[in-house]
Amino acid sequence: MRRVMLTIEYDGARFFGWQLQAEGRTVQGAVEDAVRRATTAFSRVTGASRTDSGVHALGQAAHFDTETALDDATLLKAINAWLPDDVAVLDCRTVPADFHVQFAPSTKLYRYRILCSRVPRPLREPRVLRVWQDLDADTMRRAAAALLGEHDFTSFCSEHSEAESKIRTIVRSDIVRQGDELHYLVRGQGFLYNMVRIIVGTLVQVGKGNMTPAEFAAALRARDRKAAFETAPPQGLTLVRIDYESDPRCSSPPFSDPGAGS
Amino acid sequence: MRRVMLTIEYDGARFFGWQLQAEGRTVQGAVEDAVRRATTAFSRVTGASRTDSGVHALGQAAHFDTETALDDATLLKAINAWLPDDVAVLDCRTVPADFHVQFAPSTKLYRYRILCSRVPRPLREPRVLRVWQDLDADTMRRAAAALLGEHDFTSFCSEHSEAESKIRTIVRSDIVRQGDELHYLVRGQGFLYNMVRIIVGTLVQVGKGNMTPAEFAAALRARDRKAAFETAPPQGLTLVRIDYESDPRCSSPPFSDPGAGS
Repeated sequence: MRRVMLTIEYDGARFFGWQLQAEGRTVQGAVEDAVRRATTAFSRVTGASRTDSGVHALGQAAHFDTETALDDATLLKAINAWLPDDVAVLDCRTVPADFHVQFAPSTKLYRYRILCSRVPRPLREPRVLRVWQDLDADTMRRAAAALLGEHDFTSFCSEHSEAESKIRTIVRSDIVRQGDELHYLVRGQGFLYNMVRIIVGTLVQVGKGNMTPAEFAAALRARDRKAAFETAPPQGLTLVRIDYESDPRCSSPPFSDPGAGS
Repeated sequence: MRRVMLTIEYDGARFFGWQLQAEGRTVQGAVEDAVRRATTAFSRVTGASRTDSGVHALGQAAHFDTETALDDATLLKAINAWLPDDVAVLDCRTVPADFHVQFAPSTKLYRYRILCSRVPRPLREPRVLRVWQDLDADTMRRAAAALLGEHDFTSFCSEHSEAESKIRTIVRSDIVRQGDELHYLVRGQGFLYNMVRIIVGTLVQVGKGNMTPAEFAAALRARDRKAAFETAPPQGLTLVRIDYESDPRCSSPPFSDPGAGS
């Protein structure tokens, strides 16, 4: 049996998230359908991250097992030929049979785009959270740094989460200015349900002056979802890339992402 | 009578261009409808540039005459409140009654995004022309420079054009690399029907090695549409901004455009 790893980009707007649902169009469903047509056999496609409905990906990772004789390059073209316009395979490579996109040690990088603008910006709004007010980026950056390291993230986790442990390790948590946008960049080994979006929803309140960095840090320590603010909407969030530590063969090449726009 | 100038951003994907049509959704129609609701009276809205179906704008200019008592800032909000998601007024200002967005001396800046990628890139394809091959940017840049100055642009004009003169003046014609994209940037006082898209369609052939810069210059001199290559598709094209020379009060503030992404 041969295991194949895919790197996948998608526009989340018209998907009900990555994971198969009883009803509704999902990325996993679209990819499984394309793999079935390309290889003429069904394969379960396992994704590294269950992105929510409306969340985008520049570098989702997934794997499946197949008996196909197609080489990696041909398989990539064949799968893309069957995918709809809003999802594409960027890279396709045969990996060791024991490699698993969910369990191999890795870090995930997410980006959340916040646009400060009093007027609507139709070319960007499908990919950003727009806020009227100017946000204080320096204060937001100080608050965001409190998340670095290992913490219990119960305060920044949906109450619908079924995770047994709410402890996660964050190795990057930063605000970067890009033109009139602020980008929240967060990297970690794993994230809880809605975690990045709750962090961003709360950081926006810090940026508006409704919460201090000290209060943000206290909210983390409270281990109570009610200590944080509302969940930011999905369209600003992109899973940028996943880096696998164990085996460089399993890391996809870096795909360009020219700035805020994509 | 008061004349009001608007700066307008739109995603062209779901519009049949700027100009009113017998059938089909147009930007002019959407703006006239919003102005009518905001001011409670019909005003004809005159646009500076008739962008084609599918072409985007970051800084279209338009004007209309009105008797409304609303101040500029309130009028901006009122018009935006009635506009659909894919079009917005970025700036609204009362201008001299004899100012005319089409006839006041100005230069228009257009940008065309070309993405070189063997794989589809779903987050960007609604805004770029994607080509499989690597393009030779330096050679394209040399060819593009041949358009600078005053020329008869018959070769780069749709045969459906009704313009009496095909002579236009170009003050910028350049290729800029942005990540894995090449952007063609062209500025001039006016453009013929499909002119930028035919230039880009031909420059892409230069970049592929199917035409030399000398042959590109010869195609311009031929004054024959058949001397140029096919018209590039609309989704890569954006009207970035219009600068009015005569009266600084009529120039809208520069709106940010953070990179390729938008």
